[in-house]
Amino acid sequence: MDAITLVAVVSIVTAGLTIAIGALGPALAQGRAIAQALAAIAQQPDEAPTLSRTLFVGLAMIESLAIYCFVVSMILIFANPFWNALLQAAHGG
Amino acid sequence: MDAITLVAVVSIVTAGLTIAIGALGPALAQGRAIAQALAAIAQQPDEAPTLSRTLFVGLAMIESLAIYCFVVSMILIFANPFWNALLQAAHGG
Amino acid sequence: MDAITLVAVVSIVTAGLTIAIGALGPALAQGRAIAQALAAIAQQPDEAPTLSRTLFVGLAMIESLAIYCFVVSMILIFANPFWNALLQAAHGG
Amino acid sequence: MDAITLVAVVSIVTAGLTIAIGALGPALAQGRAIAQALAAIAQQPDEAPTLSRTLFVGLAMIESLAIYCFVVSMILIFANPFWNALLQAAHGG
Amino acid sequence: MDAITLVAVVSIVTAGLTIAIGALGPALAQGRAIAQALAAIAQQPDEAPTLSRTLFVGLAMIESLAIYCFVVSMILIFANPFWNALLQAAHGG
Amino acid sequence: MDAITLVAVVSIVTAGLTIAIGALGPALAQGRAIAQALAAIAQQPDEAPTLSRTLFVGLAMIESLAIYCFVVSMILIFANPFWNALLQAAHGG
Amino acid sequence: MDAITLVAVVSIVTAGLTIAIGALGPALAQGRAIAQALAAIAQQPDEAPTLSRTLFVGLAMIESLAIYCFVVSMILIFANPFWNALLQAAHGG
Amino acid sequence: MDAITLVAVVSIVTAGLTIAIGALGPALAQGRAIAQALAAIAQQPDEAPTLSRTLFVGLAMIESLAIYCFVVSMILIFANPFWNALLQAAHGG
Amino acid sequence: MDAITLVAVVSIVTAGLTIAIGALGPALAQGRAIAQALAAIAQQPDEAPTLSRTLFVGLAMIESLAIYCFVVSMILIFANPFWNALLQAAHGG
Amino acid sequence: MDAITLVAVVSIVTAGLTIAIGALGPALAQGRAIAQALAAIAQQPDEAPTLSRTLFVGLAMIESLAIYCFVVSMILIFANPFWNALLQAAHGG
Amino acid sequence: MDAITLVAVVSIVTAGLTIAIGALGPALAQGRAIAQALAAIAQQPDEAPTLSRTLFVGLAMIESLAIYCFVVSMILIFANPFWNALLQAAHGG
Amino acid sequence: MDAITLVAVVSIVTAGLTIAIGALGPALAQGRAIAQALAAIAQQPDEAPTLSRTLFVGLAMIESLAIYCFVVSMILIFANPFWNALLQAAHGG
Amino acid sequence: MDAITLVAVVSIVTAGLTIAIGALGPALAQGRAIAQALAAIAQQPDEAPTLSRTLFVGLAMIESLAIYCFVVSMILIFANPFWNALLQAAHGG
Amino acid sequence: MDAITLVAVVSIVTAGLTIAIGALGPALAQGRAIAQALAAIAQQPDEAPTLSRTLFVGLAMIESLAIYCFVVSMILIFANPFWNALLQAAHGG
Repeated sequence: MDAITLVAVVSIVTAGLTIAIGALGPALAQGRAIAQALAAIAQQPDEAPTLSRTLFVGLAMIESLAIYCFVVSMILIFANPFWNALLQAAHGG
Repeated sequence: MDAITLVAVVSIVTAGLTIAIGALGPALAQGRAIAQALAAIAQQPDEAPTLSRTLFVGLAMIESLAIYCFVVSMILIFANPFWNALLQAAHGG
Repeated sequence: MDAITLVAVVSIVTAGLTIAIGALGPALAQGRAIAQALAAIAQQPDEAPTLSRTLFVGLAMIESLAIYCFVVSMILIFANPFWNALLQAAHGG
Repeated sequence: MDAITLVAVVSIVTAGLTIAIGALGPALAQGRAIAQALAAIAQQPDEAPTLSRTLFVGLAMIESLAIYCFVVSMILIFANPFWNALLQAAHGG
Repeated sequence: MDAITLVAVVSIVTAGLTIAIGALGPALAQGRAIAQALAAIAQQPDEAPTLSRTLFVGLAMIESLAIYCFVVSMILIFANPFWNALLQAAHGG
Repeated sequence: MDAITLVAVVSIVTAGLTIAIGALGPALAQGRAIAQALAAIAQQPDEAPTLSRTLFVGLAMIESLAIYCFVVSMILIFANPFWNALLQAAHGG
Repeated sequence: MDAITLVAVVSIVTAGLTIAIGALGPALAQGRAIAQALAAIAQQPDEAPTLSRTLFVGLAMIESLAIYCFVVSMILIFANPFWNALLQAAHGG
Repeated sequence: MDAITLVAVVSIVTAGLTIAIGALGPALAQGRAIAQALAAIAQQPDEAPTLSRTLFVGLAMIESLAIYCFVVSMILIFANPFWNALLQAAHGG
Repeated sequence: MDAITLVAVVSIVTAGLTIAIGALGPALAQGRAIAQALAAIAQQPDEAPTLSRTLFVGLAMIESLAIYCFVVSMILIFANPFWNALLQAAHGG
Repeated sequence: MDAITLVAVVSIVTAGLTIAIGALGPALAQGRAIAQALAAIAQQPDEAPTLSRTLFVGLAMIESLAIYCFVVSMILIFANPFWNALLQAAHGG
Repeated sequence: MDAITLVAVVSIVTAGLTIAIGALGPALAQGRAIAQALAAIAQQPDEAPTLSRTLFVGLAMIESLAIYCFVVSMILIFANPFWNALLQAAHGG
Repeated sequence: MDAITLVAVVSIVTAGLTIAIGALGPALAQGRAIAQALAAIAQQPDEAPTLSRTLFVGLAMIESLAIYCFVVSMILIFANPFWNALLQAAHGG
Repeated sequence: MDAITLVAVVSIVTAGLTIAIGALGPALAQGRAIAQALAAIAQQPDEAPTLSRTLFVGLAMIESLAIYCFVVSMILIFANPFWNALLQAAHGG
Repeated sequence: MDAITLVAVVSIVTAGLTIAIGALGPALAQGRAIAQALAAIAQQPDEAPTLSRTLFVGLAMIESLAIYCFVVSMILIFANPFWNALLQAAHGG
């Protein structure tokens, strides 16, 4: 198979696996954080605002890890420099 | 096998595995969060509205991770740029 | 083997594995949520309606993850765009 | 090997694995839910009807996940569109 | 190897693995449910009839999952539509 | 290698693995149930008959899962329809 | 390699793995049951006869699972119908 | 490679793996049983004879599982019927 | 396939897997730290500033590990010295 | 490669893996038994002789499992019947 | 493929995996240490300075392990002696 | 590759893996035993001599398992009978 | 591919994996030790110097294990005797 | 590839993996022992000398397991008898 097809194939597989594996850890981590936040609010209802704020800052940091993966996945599908270079080479060749 | 078939094959496999693996983590995380929410409501019934609100915001953030995977999966099936480029090349060739 | 057979084979395998793996996480998550709901109702019988409502909303969100997988699986079996494109190409060729 | 045999082989393997893997998660989840239900009834015998009702609704939702897998498995054995299309092509060829 | 042999081989392997893997989850789930039922009866001997009834309904639902696998396994050995179709084709060919 | 040998080989491997894997889950489940039964009898000696009865019904249901596997294993060794069909074909050929 | 050798090789491997894997689960299950029995006797020395009787019935049922595996393993080594059929065919051929 | 070598190679590998894997489960089970026995004796020193007797019967039953594996391993090395049959065939051929 | 394609393919796969695997550990670690921080704030609301400060310093150190992976991933996509060297060699050759 | 080399290679690998895997389970089991023995002596110093005796009998039984593996490993290296038979055949041939 | 390409490919893969795997352990370890530090501060607010100092020294030691991996990863990308030697050989050849 | 090289290669790999895998279990077991010994001494400082003696006898028995592996590893490197036999055959041939 | 390239490739891969895997265990171990040290200081602030000293000696011993791996990794990259021997042979050949 | 290269390659890989895997178990074991020592010192500060002595003897025994692996690793890199024998054979040939 030629180079362009191969890069396309590999980009598809990698894009999918990157976001699939990359969503696993953050999901479990967010689940744990939210579960503990609910337990903490039930234990200290008066501290709900402080707990919520800490929770949301934490969720945002965890979400950032999944977004790194999503960004790489999107780059591989829509802005893949290797694909562009090979396409350019093929058209200019 | 030719390039178009290969890209089709790889897109199918990746689309399926992405959503299958990508649903695993969020599902477990949502299960944990819901379970803890129920325990917290049973412990502090008076805080049910605060707990529900925190729970639903949390579930939405976890759901967003699964939706990233679903989006990639749908892109690979219905809006696959590599497939389109190869189809265009084949028809224009 | 020719392109049409290959796409058929891959679609079958992916459809099966997607729903099989995709049912694993939601099943465990629903089991956990239901188990905790039962414990919570036994602890606070007066809050049964609130707990049930929270449980069913949660189960629906988890079920949605399995349904994403089921949708992808059904698309691959009955509305597979790659299969249709190749069939069309074969008949028009 | 020819296309029809290959599709038959793959359909058999996928049908078996789909239901085998797909029964794993729901089984564990149902076991957990039932175990907790028994513990809850032993703790609050007066709430047995509410607990049973919640348990059976929950078991039905978990069972639905296994049934998705069983449906895909049966479709692959008895109503496989790829097999039918290839048989039709072979007979009409 | 020819098509009939291949289908036979694959059917044998899949039939065995389906029931072997498919018995794993239900067995563990039933073990958990029975263990909890015994603990619950020891804790609340007066509720033994209610607990037994809930246990047996639950065991039946878990058993149904293993029976799905056993059904698929038996279909693959004794009522395999692909095998029948290929045998018919071979005899009629 | 010819078809008869292949079917023999595959039947041997599948028969062994089916019972080996199929004995794993029920064994662990029975161990758990028996362990809990002993703990329950030690806690409520007066309920020993009820506990024993529940235990033995439960062990029988778990044993049934292992027996499904043993049945498939024995069918594959001593009453294998594919082997018989191929032997018949070879002798009649 | 010829058919007889292949069947011999596969029978050896399967016989060994069947008993090796098949001893794993029952061993762990027996260990758990015995450990709990010792804890129960230490807790209720007066119930030692009842506990011992329940333990030994349980161990026998778990042992039966390992014996299924041992039986299959011995059948494959010393009473293998496929090996006999092939030997007979070779000698009679 | 010829048949005799192959059977020798496979027998060696299987003999080693059978006892290696087959010692794993019984070892862990015996460790658990002994650990619990020590805890039980420390808790009820007056019951030491009963506990020791139960422990040693239990250890013997677990040891029997490892001995099944050792027997199969020794049979494969020193009384392998397939090896003997092939040697006999080679010498008599 | 030629050298440039191969380097492109390998860079794509590695870039995706590096960030996907590299996000797993930090995500779980952040989830644990945040969960404990919420529990600690609920236990000692007066120490919330100290706890938050310690938490955020810790999250930053964990985040740094994920950023190492993201940096390597970005280097492989956009500043890959091997790709540049090979491109230069190809153009200058 | 010829038969003698192959048997040598396989014997080396199997001898090493047998003792390496075979030492894993007994080591963990002995660690558990010793740990519990220490806890028991600390709890009932007066029973130290009984506990030590039980511990050493138990350790000997676990050690026996590792020695089975060591025996098989030594047999494969220094008294390998297959190697001897092949050497004899080579020298006598 | 030629030597230079191969070294480039292997360096890319190894650089990525080294930092990806190498970040896993330190991340989990830091998460555990930070979580415990928060729990400790909540328990003994007066010891916060001592606890913070111990925590930061510990985090630095764990970070050092990840930095070893990052260093090896960077060496492989930007200061790879094998790549340099081969480039030199190619240019000088 | 010739027989001598192959035996050398396999001996190296097996020697390394045997000690690497074989050190895993004893290390974990020793860690557990030492940890419990420290807990026991802290609980009963007066029994420190008895505990230490029991600990060191136990550690020696666990160490013996690792030494079996080390012995096999050293035999394979420095006193490998297969290597010697092949060398002798090569020199005498 | 020639010998020098192969040794380079293998050295790169091994160097990376050695430090990556080798950092995993020490990282987790240090995390555990630090976490416990923080808990111990919070429990006995007066013993902080003794605890810190014990902790740092322990961390140094764990660090030594990671440094063994780092040393091997560096030897493989910068002082690889096999690479040097082959280079010397190539230049002197 | 020739014998010398192959032995070099295999020695490199084995040396790296041996120390990498061999450091895993001792690291975890040392981490556990140190953690427990800290807990024990916090519980019985007066026994710190006895606990430290027991800890350091234990750490030395665990370290010895890692050193076995390091020794084998160093032997394979710097004093490899197979490499020496082959080099000698090559030079003397």
